[in-house]
Amino acid sequence: MKVGIIMGSISDRELSDKAEKILREFGVSVYKEVISAHRTPERAVEFAENCRKDGFDVIIAIAGKAAHLGGVLAAITTVPVIGLPAKSSTMDGLDSLLSIVQMPKGIPVATVAINGAENAALLAVGMMSLKYDSLVEKLDAYRRELKNQVKKMNEELQS
Amino acid sequence: MKVGIIMGSISDRELSDKAEKILREFGVSVYKEVISAHRTPERAVEFAENCRKDGFDVIIAIAGKAAHLGGVLAAITTVPVIGLPAKSSTMDGLDSLLSIVQMPKGIPVATVAINGAENAALLAVGMMSLKYDSLVEKLDAYRRELKNQVKKMNEELQS
Amino acid sequence: MKVGIIMGSISDRELSDKAEKILREFGVSVYKEVISAHRTPERAVEFAENCRKDGFDVIIAIAGKAAHLGGVLAAITTVPVIGLPAKSSTMDGLDSLLSIVQMPKGIPVATVAINGAENAALLAVGMMSLKYDSLVEKLDAYRRELKNQVKKMNEELQS
Amino acid sequence: MKVGIIMGSISDRELSDKAEKILREFGVSVYKEVISAHRTPERAVEFAENCRKDGFDVIIAIAGKAAHLGGVLAAITTVPVIGLPAKSSTMDGLDSLLSIVQMPKGIPVATVAINGAENAALLAVGMMSLKYDSLVEKLDAYRRELKNQVKKMNEELQS
Amino acid sequence: MKVGIIMGSISDRELSDKAEKILREFGVSVYKEVISAHRTPERAVEFAENCRKDGFDVIIAIAGKAAHLGGVLAAITTVPVIGLPAKSSTMDGLDSLLSIVQMPKGIPVATVAINGAENAALLAVGMMSLKYDSLVEKLDAYRRELKNQVKKMNEELQS
Amino acid sequence: MKVGIIMGSISDRELSDKAEKILREFGVSVYKEVISAHRTPERAVEFAENCRKDGFDVIIAIAGKAAHLGGVLAAITTVPVIGLPAKSSTMDGLDSLLSIVQMPKGIPVATVAINGAENAALLAVGMMSLKYDSLVEKLDAYRRELKNQVKKMNEELQS
Amino acid sequence: MKVGIIMGSISDRELSDKAEKILREFGVSVYKEVISAHRTPERAVEFAENCRKDGFDVIIAIAGKAAHLGGVLAAITTVPVIGLPAKSSTMDGLDSLLSIVQMPKGIPVATVAINGAENAALLAVGMMSLKYDSLVEKLDAYRRELKNQVKKMNEELQS
Amino acid sequence: MKVGIIMGSISDRELSDKAEKILREFGVSVYKEVISAHRTPERAVEFAENCRKDGFDVIIAIAGKAAHLGGVLAAITTVPVIGLPAKSSTMDGLDSLLSIVQMPKGIPVATVAINGAENAALLAVGMMSLKYDSLVEKLDAYRRELKNQVKKMNEELQS
Repeated sequence: MKVGIIMGSISDRELSDKAEKILREFGVSVYKEVISAHRTPERAVEFAENCRKDGFDVIIAIAGKAAHLGGVLAAITTVPVIGLPAKSSTMDGLDSLLSIVQMPKGIPVATVAINGAENAALLAVGMMSLKYDSLVEKLDAYRRELKNQVKKMNEELQS
Repeated sequence: MKVGIIMGSISDRELSDKAEKILREFGVSVYKEVISAHRTPERAVEFAENCRKDGFDVIIAIAGKAAHLGGVLAAITTVPVIGLPAKSSTMDGLDSLLSIVQMPKGIPVATVAINGAENAALLAVGMMSLKYDSLVEKLDAYRRELKNQVKKMNEELQS
Repeated sequence: MKVGIIMGSISDRELSDKAEKILREFGVSVYKEVISAHRTPERAVEFAENCRKDGFDVIIAIAGKAAHLGGVLAAITTVPVIGLPAKSSTMDGLDSLLSIVQMPKGIPVATVAINGAENAALLAVGMMSLKYDSLVEKLDAYRRELKNQVKKMNEELQS
Repeated sequence: MKVGIIMGSISDRELSDKAEKILREFGVSVYKEVISAHRTPERAVEFAENCRKDGFDVIIAIAGKAAHLGGVLAAITTVPVIGLPAKSSTMDGLDSLLSIVQMPKGIPVATVAINGAENAALLAVGMMSLKYDSLVEKLDAYRRELKNQVKKMNEELQS
Repeated sequence: MKVGIIMGSISDRELSDKAEKILREFGVSVYKEVISAHRTPERAVEFAENCRKDGFDVIIAIAGKAAHLGGVLAAITTVPVIGLPAKSSTMDGLDSLLSIVQMPKGIPVATVAINGAENAALLAVGMMSLKYDSLVEKLDAYRRELKNQVKKMNEELQS
Repeated sequence: MKVGIIMGSISDRELSDKAEKILREFGVSVYKEVISAHRTPERAVEFAENCRKDGFDVIIAIAGKAAHLGGVLAAITTVPVIGLPAKSSTMDGLDSLLSIVQMPKGIPVATVAINGAENAALLAVGMMSLKYDSLVEKLDAYRRELKNQVKKMNEELQS
Repeated sequence: MKVGIIMGSISDRELSDKAEKILREFGVSVYKEVISAHRTPERAVEFAENCRKDGFDVIIAIAGKAAHLGGVLAAITTVPVIGLPAKSSTMDGLDSLLSIVQMPKGIPVATVAINGAENAALLAVGMMSLKYDSLVEKLDAYRRELKNQVKKMNEELQS
Repeated sequence: MKVGIIMGSISDRELSDKAEKILREFGVSVYKEVISAHRTPERAVEFAENCRKDGFDVIIAIAGKAAHLGGVLAAITTVPVIGLPAKSSTMDGLDSLLSIVQMPKGIPVATVAINGAENAALLAVGMMSLKYDSLVEKLDAYRRELKNQVKKMNEELQS
């Protein structure tokens, strides 16, 4: 089980860390690298061309503003690409979201919420659960943990 | 290989048909049903509770406006849910998109473009390619077909 | 007179407190609970199924981002549901608002302003005034108090 | 059981008719009148001042663009006011929606979806169900009818 | 020369002060009052009914969110009403702007930029310059002062 | 009484005609010309420099998209400029509206609704009513006519 | 003088034709090709790598929705890239615009209006006028022609 | 090689400084001046009329809100004008962006990202590279430097 977290800039590291934390909790190997669709396009192509044979199950692409990274990778590899829109400094992430989600017919990028790093990781786990049965049980456990969190919120609320 | 296409209303049928067509081209079984998160919530719960044991690999949820269907299904099943926002009559699909993609931490819905029915199907195929190796080759063939389409566009352009 | 304030997360507590304060000033009993449409969907269903026979006159549902809580409760109960959109961290509450207000035909959610906790409470009181005559007078008194506040604002302005 | 449907212009008649149809199905008396917050403000004040003693249980205010009608009525009467935003010719109803839903603290207007005439009526019925027990049963029947519609959609889908 | 600055809440005082400062520099009398279209609608009507005979040349109405104040005053008086949209806490002033500027046919409100207090005052002066010739010269002087400001900016830029 | 209707393109003629019709009903002289801030900037400067001495009381500037016309004229003349945003082909008039209304400090443009040609004319009349007493009476008559229209709408509604 | 018009799909042909027409009027050679950043990424890389040595002065990239084409080309070549956002079927071109204009630091794409095909061509001519003096005169002539068009509009307006 | 950086206000200085820094690194002469389209329109006209004969290769126009500066300059000169939208205090720069990019047919302004000062400078360099061959090499070096930055980001990421 191996996920590549590709971020457009080191400034996306906080989102990357959140996604990585979840993935590791599920026992998933994480490879991470800064690859910019615009500053290092050759590396983007190279990474995408090899990512199926390098054993990646899923790619998470984090980018902001005119966020082309996910689409650029998905154009080359058929490994599923999850697009994580980073909140941008001027348009509150709407530019990132639309640049990622509105992919034209033929090349999908699975998009999650703006700054939704945990959900990017959980979606990757969900995809991998098709292949790795052990993850199904872990996802169920995670869901139970979510319910526990709500239970604790209610204890806090009542106190 | 089995995908469930769940639509919030019969008015989403055109999108469903487009997604189904792609899926069948890839040899994927398709189950389709109208289930409304708001009008038939019990059926939504029942469907979601059973969809892993019913053998669904991926669920595609099509809905518009305050589009809760994808989130409601994803809250119950751990089978990956793809959210397909339908263009709405008054907000050009922005309401559908935000209602689907902005899922809170814990329960992701893999979102594609507004009215992006083909991409919902292709994303489902991409997810299933983790499990079914035969789909990798078919995806590669599909990509070659996309390139062929562009080639034909250029012939049309030059003529 | 009994209102249920259901919030999607403990982070909505501040809004809940503001609504509760108003309701208690009107002598209304308040029950509050964290119920997440996505993390505890079974509890959402259970609560909604019972809320008429549990004596709730009105439900206030507070949620942010892809805010499905109000719609999920309203889909099951016929007790009036007021949707209170919480300002979200990335889209300034527009996602919450559209996810709540744009409900499809058949299942309405009475929506108030983004972060409009007091108005959610006042709307609940207004609804209950159909049944409890005593509330009419209290609403009139509240309106007089609003006028007094403006009077005091003018004293402050002139000084 | 009596609902006033107030519309800002005769151009809102189609929405009014849809709301009226639902209300009459529930056995609710409907009074309708064109009252413009801007062209006939005196009539708006007069109507609002009298609407509790005239026996109105709920007011539905339909307006578009800078849609002040609901707020203007709600400022004077304590009878619950439902705001129905009409799709406008230039901003797709976003102006109507924000003008109605973003009411400041103190005076709520219960807002439904843009052009959501049926939901405005159903919300009115839901509010009145606090007072008139017979409506609860009718609402349950209506919900069953909604389920039937989905059933028929599925028959159409399968055929 | 007399301008009424009407604000929906004491929280608009900062904008009112900026507008007042400009007006007084032009020798214009300023009357200011908090009048809420929603909390003190009777006072709004009374003020508007009398504002021509009370000698007001122009009214500036400051309001935020569902900003009905300008429209409510303009509906009753034919004295020109300038609408000044206050930046709101959740929608960045877009709700205020649309609620003010999108007035339906028949009753205009002259709208200036969000939080554009100085321009509201200058527009009032511009309107009054039709009647009071002395203001034309003062407006010309103000324009020269604007040019001087730019000159000083350039000195600062070069230093 | 003389108003200049300046339009950025002949395509704004329909809006110009609507404004002109109202103005002529009020007995106001109308001068109209196509002046483009971008294609004929010298003419824009020339017109603006002379418009006070040419006896214009008010200027109405109609433009769409990046609608600079109103601002360009207002930068040169101190005659009040009303900006009328024309609905654009791609952004539904939001670009026109923001380009006109969001004028920086110092140079206001009195903005009306997108495509609000009649209101531009009525605002011009309202401004001129400061100077020409006869217009006050005519404005009152126009308001009565608006009320009559609503009366007729109600007759239509009841029939 | 040679400009490459690259379009993401044959559906952008109408925009391409408009741009080409202008360029040919200025005596500029036009090369056009459908290259999709997502369907033919290798061709996009190849084209961009060679476009300086192939003698292109400027590239015009036309694309809609998640419009990555301009950014993908600009990431590889240093020949100036003009991004022309095509109006999309669901978001009125806002997605195209933001995907193109919001390029991160380092790789600019010169963006023109949504569907602004003529301006893309004129901007290309303007850029080339730095190198080819003859274009300056032609641009001046074009400007005179624009003024003539306005003159004719006025003749039409007066007739 | 000479670029004029024109800013609408001294408050745009930070953006101007960022652009200037890049330009000087490329050996480009920079002239900068505060010129307001609205406060010093005559100077805007004068500057634009002379900027070709004054030897400017490119103009960068920085402005916010109703940002007319770029359009006003481009209307007069045929020297390429780059529009740099400054983030505004109330609309997050959307008003600035639309006011600049949505230029009508005939007069293009090459628009970069909101607050994208570095890209405005790099676009100017890219344009000038048509004329000055030495810049091509420098642009290539800059691109290599961008790649180096990503390399360093990866070293930071791995450490």
